[in-house]
Amino acid sequence: MKIKVINPNTTASITQKIAEAAIAVANSGTEIIACNPDKGPVSIEGHYDEALSVVGILEEIKKGEAAGVDGYVIACFGDPGLLAARELAKGPVLGIAEAAMHAASLIATGFSIVTTLSRTRVIAQHLVANYGMTHFCRKIRAIDLPVLELEDENSNARKTILAECRQALIEDGAGAIVLGCGGMADLSAQLSQELGVPVIDGVSVAVKFVEALVSLGLNTSKKGDLAYPIAKPYTGMLYAFAFENRE
Amino acid sequence: MKIKVINPNTTASITQKIAEAAIAVANSGTEIIACNPDKGPVSIEGHYDEALSVVGILEEIKKGEAAGVDGYVIACFGDPGLLAARELAKGPVLGIAEAAMHAASLIATGFSIVTTLSRTRVIAQHLVANYGMTHFCRKIRAIDLPVLELEDENSNARKTILAECRQALIEDGAGAIVLGCGGMADLSAQLSQELGVPVIDGVSVAVKFVEALVSLGLNTSKKGDLAYPIAKPYTGMLYAFAFENRE
Amino acid sequence: MKIKVINPNTTASITQKIAEAAIAVANSGTEIIACNPDKGPVSIEGHYDEALSVVGILEEIKKGEAAGVDGYVIACFGDPGLLAARELAKGPVLGIAEAAMHAASLIATGFSIVTTLSRTRVIAQHLVANYGMTHFCRKIRAIDLPVLELEDENSNARKTILAECRQALIEDGAGAIVLGCGGMADLSAQLSQELGVPVIDGVSVAVKFVEALVSLGLNTSKKGDLAYPIAKPYTGMLYAFAFENRE
Amino acid sequence: MKIKVINPNTTASITQKIAEAAIAVANSGTEIIACNPDKGPVSIEGHYDEALSVVGILEEIKKGEAAGVDGYVIACFGDPGLLAARELAKGPVLGIAEAAMHAASLIATGFSIVTTLSRTRVIAQHLVANYGMTHFCRKIRAIDLPVLELEDENSNARKTILAECRQALIEDGAGAIVLGCGGMADLSAQLSQELGVPVIDGVSVAVKFVEALVSLGLNTSKKGDLAYPIAKPYTGMLYAFAFENRE
Amino acid sequence: MKIKVINPNTTASITQKIAEAAIAVANSGTEIIACNPDKGPVSIEGHYDEALSVVGILEEIKKGEAAGVDGYVIACFGDPGLLAARELAKGPVLGIAEAAMHAASLIATGFSIVTTLSRTRVIAQHLVANYGMTHFCRKIRAIDLPVLELEDENSNARKTILAECRQALIEDGAGAIVLGCGGMADLSAQLSQELGVPVIDGVSVAVKFVEALVSLGLNTSKKGDLAYPIAKPYTGMLYAFAFENRE
Amino acid sequence: MKIKVINPNTTASITQKIAEAAIAVANSGTEIIACNPDKGPVSIEGHYDEALSVVGILEEIKKGEAAGVDGYVIACFGDPGLLAARELAKGPVLGIAEAAMHAASLIATGFSIVTTLSRTRVIAQHLVANYGMTHFCRKIRAIDLPVLELEDENSNARKTILAECRQALIEDGAGAIVLGCGGMADLSAQLSQELGVPVIDGVSVAVKFVEALVSLGLNTSKKGDLAYPIAKPYTGMLYAFAFENRE
Repeated sequence: MKIKVINPNTTASITQKIAEAAIAVANSGTEIIACNPDKGPVSIEGHYDEALSVVGILEEIKKGEAAGVDGYVIACFGDPGLLAARELAKGPVLGIAEAAMHAASLIATGFSIVTTLSRTRVIAQHLVANYGMTHFCRKIRAIDLPVLELEDENSNARKTILAECRQALIEDGAGAIVLGCGGMADLSAQLSQELGVPVIDGVSVAVKFVEALVSLGLNTSKKGDLAYPIAKPYTGMLYAFAFENRE
Repeated sequence: MKIKVINPNTTASITQKIAEAAIAVANSGTEIIACNPDKGPVSIEGHYDEALSVVGILEEIKKGEAAGVDGYVIACFGDPGLLAARELAKGPVLGIAEAAMHAASLIATGFSIVTTLSRTRVIAQHLVANYGMTHFCRKIRAIDLPVLELEDENSNARKTILAECRQALIEDGAGAIVLGCGGMADLSAQLSQELGVPVIDGVSVAVKFVEALVSLGLNTSKKGDLAYPIAKPYTGMLYAFAFENRE
Repeated sequence: MKIKVINPNTTASITQKIAEAAIAVANSGTEIIACNPDKGPVSIEGHYDEALSVVGILEEIKKGEAAGVDGYVIACFGDPGLLAARELAKGPVLGIAEAAMHAASLIATGFSIVTTLSRTRVIAQHLVANYGMTHFCRKIRAIDLPVLELEDENSNARKTILAECRQALIEDGAGAIVLGCGGMADLSAQLSQELGVPVIDGVSVAVKFVEALVSLGLNTSKKGDLAYPIAKPYTGMLYAFAFENRE
Repeated sequence: MKIKVINPNTTASITQKIAEAAIAVANSGTEIIACNPDKGPVSIEGHYDEALSVVGILEEIKKGEAAGVDGYVIACFGDPGLLAARELAKGPVLGIAEAAMHAASLIATGFSIVTTLSRTRVIAQHLVANYGMTHFCRKIRAIDLPVLELEDENSNARKTILAECRQALIEDGAGAIVLGCGGMADLSAQLSQELGVPVIDGVSVAVKFVEALVSLGLNTSKKGDLAYPIAKPYTGMLYAFAFENRE
Repeated sequence: MKIKVINPNTTASITQKIAEAAIAVANSGTEIIACNPDKGPVSIEGHYDEALSVVGILEEIKKGEAAGVDGYVIACFGDPGLLAARELAKGPVLGIAEAAMHAASLIATGFSIVTTLSRTRVIAQHLVANYGMTHFCRKIRAIDLPVLELEDENSNARKTILAECRQALIEDGAGAIVLGCGGMADLSAQLSQELGVPVIDGVSVAVKFVEALVSLGLNTSKKGDLAYPIAKPYTGMLYAFAFENRE
Repeated sequence: MKIKVINPNTTASITQKIAEAAIAVANSGTEIIACNPDKGPVSIEGHYDEALSVVGILEEIKKGEAAGVDGYVIACFGDPGLLAARELAKGPVLGIAEAAMHAASLIATGFSIVTTLSRTRVIAQHLVANYGMTHFCRKIRAIDLPVLELEDENSNARKTILAECRQALIEDGAGAIVLGCGGMADLSAQLSQELGVPVIDGVSVAVKFVEALVSLGLNTSKKGDLAYPIAKPYTGMLYAFAFENRE
C-alpha cells in the first residue's frame, strides 16, 4: 500500500520530520511517500498561507493519483484543502487535525489542543466545530512561537510546549493532549511519557487510520460532493489543474 | 468609495452580469470595479474548483489594496477564500452567500436556498453552519443545472428556478428565498415579484452592506487571526504571493 | 427614504444622543425620524422594563406606517418587541443588538459585548443564541453602572467602559467590541481609535443596514409569522392596538 | 396555597375552560384563581398579539403579589412575558408550553406539538430552542384553524386535531403529543385515550409543577436577571407599572 | 399513590437519608417506598459503578411493577439506567439529576451544579447535554470528597459544599444551585437559607414531579423506544431478567 | 497484539459471524479473541437489553485485562457500557457504532444509518449526538426486522436492507451507509459493490482502529473520568465486580 504524506509548506526539514514520524509507525507493507509542494509558503500561519498552500497540495494529490497512491495525509494542523483533495482522490484523504481529534475522542472524554500561534487558534476552533468535536475539546491553547522556531534546536519551544500541556491538564479537565502543528510530530512520545496522558500527534494517527481505511477498501465516496471534479477548462497559470474525466 | 466585486470564475459574461447587478444598486458616490481572475476555473461547481479559485481572488484583493479599494465582494455563493481575503484587506470583505443569508435573517424568520447543483448543497450547508444560520435556513434546494447553463438564453433555467422557489414556499415554511449562485444575480427582482416574497441576490446585498460598513469606518479587524499575513518567503510559481510587511 | 429610530425608553436625552448618531451616518437622501414613546420606563434594565417598553414601540411603528416610514431601528440593546414590530411594518425593522452583532461577525471572527448591568447579560446571551452568534461571541461583559449614569457628564462611565474593552481584547480573544447599550452610541469612534479595533455601535450600523435593505426593496416578508397581524378586537386600555386589515 | 392561572387573552370562555382544567387537577389545599386581563387581544395568534398581552399579564402578576399568590401559570402556548413575570413574582411562574414540553421529555424520548395556526409554529420553534428541547421535539404541526374556532361547538376542530395527532404518531416517531394551545385544555384526556399515548395539556401540568415547586419552597431566584425590577419612573399610560422597591 | 425511591448504591444510611427527604415532601396520600438493591457498589463514583448499579435498579423496578407502584425515582445524580427503567415501568420514572435540572431551569435562567468528585463531572456534563440544559448550566463544580464522606458526621463536607456554592454564585453568574449527589439530600434547606438562592435537591423535586405526573395520568409512553422490552431469553446469572410479555 | 471482540448478546452464531469479520481484516500479527458473555440477553433490541448486557461486557473486559489483552471492540451498535469498559481497560476500547460513524465522516460528508428496529433508532440518535456526528448523519433508517432474523438464511433481510440503503442514497443525500447492527457484519462488502458507495460495518473498522491506536501506544487516558474504578466493596450477586486497586 502506498500512502502519500504531504507537508503543505515548502520547508524540507519539516517534511523530513513528518516523513520520519510516518515511517516510524507504518506497517511493513506500507510505502510512505513524503513530499512537500515546490510552490507556496515556507510555513503556514494563518488563513492566507493555508489557502495558498492548497494549490501545491492538490498538485501532489494529482501526481499521487497518477502514481497509484492508495491514500493521503495532509500534514498541516489546519487541514487545508481537505474536501477539495477528497474530490480528486480515489482513496481516503485525512488531515492531521481531523485524525488527531478523532483519535483523542476515542481514548478520552475531553482533550485540549496545544498549537503554535494565537492567531491560528481560530482555525483550530473552526475545525473543532466542523468535525463535531465541540463536546470533546476543552480548550485550544497557543505557545505563541512561530512554526519554524520548532526547527531550531536551540529554541525553548519544547519546554514551552511541555509547560503549556501541564497547564492544560491542571486547568482544562483534559484527559489527553492534541499537538496542534505538523512540526511537533517528533514530540508526542516524550511528552506522553513526561505527562502520563496520551499526547497525540496527528501525522502518525493519520497514517494508521489511512492504512486502516485502505485495508478495508473504504475509499472516498464518489457519490455527491466528493465525486471527481466536473471536467471543465481552467485558464491562465492554473490551466493544468483542469480535471479530465475519469473512469 | 471604491468597491471591488470579484467574480471568482473566469467567465466574462458572468462578470458582466454581476457588474450590472452591483452597479444597479450602488450609491452614486460608489465606484464599482468588477473583475474576474485571469487564472482558474470557468465555473465553480465543487470544493476543488472553489479551492483553486482562491488563487485568483487573492491576487485581485492584492491588486485592490494597491489601488486603494475600500471594500470587496466575493461573488460566488461558496464564499471561497473569505477569511484569507480578509487577512489581506484593510477594508471589509463580504461573500455573497454570507451577505444574502444575513439579509434574509433580518427580514424573515426562515429562508430556503435555491442553488444550481446538488453536489454544491454541501458547500452551502457548511456555510449555513459557519455563519450561525442553522435556525434560519429551512432547506437547501438544487435545480441540478450547471452554472453555465444560466448563461444560455435558450435554457429553461429561469422556469426551473421559479418552480423550485414555489416548492420552497409551499413545503419549507420559508418566508424568503436566497438565490444560491452569483450567476442568478439578474433574477431576484422578477422572482420576487412573481412569488410575493423577498428573493435575495447576494451580490446586491453584499455591495450595500460593504458600502454601509465602509461608510461607518468599520474595517476588517486587524487584531487576531485576520491581521495582515505574516511576512515570509513563498516559493515556486507562487513566489509573488509572499506578503510584505504593511503598516 | 424615511427611517424611524425608536428609543424604547422615555428619556429624551438618550433619544437625542441616538438621533445624533443616526443622523451622522445617514445618507443625504435619508430622513431620520428619532423618537421615544410617551409611555413606559425611563430606562430599560431587565426583562420587565423591556416587556413594557414594547407597548410604546409598537405604537410608534403604527404611527410610522401611517406616515409612510420605509424602515425602523429599535434602539435598545435588548431588541424589545422585534418580531412583533416586524409583523406591523411593511419595511425592514432592525434591532441594534442584532445589527451590531451581524456587523461584528462580518469583520471579525470573534467579538465581545460590553454592556451596562450584570443582570442584563442574560438578555444579551439569549439574543446571541437567537441570532446564531454563539460561535462569534466570545464573552458578554458588564460594567455594572446604571444606564442613566451614561447620561451624567461627571460619571466615570467612559473610563470604565474603556477599561472593560481593554480586558476583553486581552482575555477573550476578541477582534472587535460590540457596545451593549443604545446610550453608548456616542462612544464608538473614540473607543475604536483608542483600542485599535472596530468598536461597534448598533444604532449607526442599524441605520445603514436599514438603508441598504430599503434601497434594495427588501422588505419584511409578509409570508408566514411576520405577515400583518390578524384583525381582531382588543379590549380595555389597549383597544386602539387592534390591527385593521391592510392590503 | 394560592395559584393564579392567567389566560393572557381576554376571552372569558377560554378562561373558563382553563379554570376548569386547573381546578380538576389541583390538590385539595390549592386555591386556583383563574383570570384574564381586562385589556388586550381576544386571542393570541402571532408575535404582535403576544407582545401586547404581556401588559395584562404583568398587571395580573402585580395584583397577585399584593394578594399573596404563591405561584402562577401563564396559560398561552407562546409563554408570553415569562421572564418579565418572573422578575415581578416571588414564587414560581410557569408557562404552559414550557411545562408541557418539560413533562413530555420526562415520559417520552420524542414528542410532536400540535398547534392551531401555521404562523404560530415559529413561536413554538423558538420556545423549543430556548427550553433546550431541540433533541426531544420531533415536529411542530398546525391544524390551521383560528384559536377561537376551538370555542365553537359546531366546529370540526376536535376531529382535525385528532387526525393531526395520528399523523404525528405515524410520521414523526413521536411517543407523546403536546397540545399547542391553551384553548385545547379540555381535550387531552379524550385524545390520550383514543391515541394510546400521552397527550399533554400544558395548563394541568403547569398547575401541578407550580404546586410541586411551591410545596418545596422553590421560588424564583432573586439573584441575577430575575431579581425584582429596579425601581424607576414609568411615564404616560403605563405610569402605574413603575416597580417600587420590595424587601 | 405509591412511589418507589431507589437508592442505586447499597449503603443503607444513604437510603435512609433519601427516604427521609422523600417522605418529608410527599403528599399525605403518597406512600414512599425507599429501597436499595441488595447487589452492587456501596457508592457510585464513576461510569463503572454506575453501569453495574443498573442491575439492581432494574430488579427493583421489576418488583415495583409487580407491587403496583405508580412511579419511581432513581436517586443517584448520574441517573443510571433511566431509559432502561422507563421501558420496564408503566408509570413515570425520574432521575434526580434530571428532576433537579428541570426544576432549576424553571426558577432561574442559569444554575451551577456542585457535585462530589471531579471525575464524575463528565457524567454530569453528559446529562446536561442529553437533557437540553446546555444553555442553563453555567458550571459543574466538584468538592473532591468521596460520596461516603457525606455520611461521616465529623467530616468537613458541609462546609466545603457551602464554600463551593458561594464561589458558584460569585463566579458563574448562577441564580440557583443544583446539588449533584443523592447523599446531599438533607442539605438543601439549610444551604438555601444561608445562600439566599434556591438550592435544589433532586430527590425531593423528583418525588413531587412524579406525584404530579401520576396524578395527571401521564405515564411513560409505551409507543416507540420506551415500550415494554421485547420478550426473549436471558441466559446465565441474568436469566431472571428475561421480560415476559405484558398487556 | 491481542484484540478482544465482545459480542454483547449471548447468541453464538452472531459471535461467530463477528469473529469472522474481525479475523478477515486483522493484521497478521493480531490475535482476535471473539467471545460473548455467558449471561444476558440473546439479542439487544432496546435500552433494557442494552443496560443488562453491560454486566457481561464488563466481565469480559476484566478477564481480558488479566489475560493481557491490548484493546477491545464492543460489537453491538448501541455501544453498551462503552465508558464503563474504558474505565476498566488499559488499552483502547471502541464501540462499533462509534467506529463506523467516525470512519464514515472521514470518507463522506454525510451518511445514513440502516438499523434493524424502529425502536432502536432513538439509541442510534443519542449516539449520533454524543459522538458529535449531528452534522454528518443524514438519517437513521430501520428495516423493522428483529436482530435474530438476520441469522435466518431464509429471511428476506438482505433484500430489505439493500432496498433501504437504496432509498437512503436517493432521498437522504448520503454519500455512505453505516450498517446499524453487529449482525450485519457480513454484508458490507456485497452491499458496497451493489450500491457503488462505501457501506461501513463497524466491526471491521473498530478492529482496524484499535490496531492503529494500540500500535501507536495510544491507550485509554487514565487521567479523569476514565481512570481505573475506585476500589470499593460490591455486594450480593455482583460482589466479584469490586475493582481492586491497580498500578
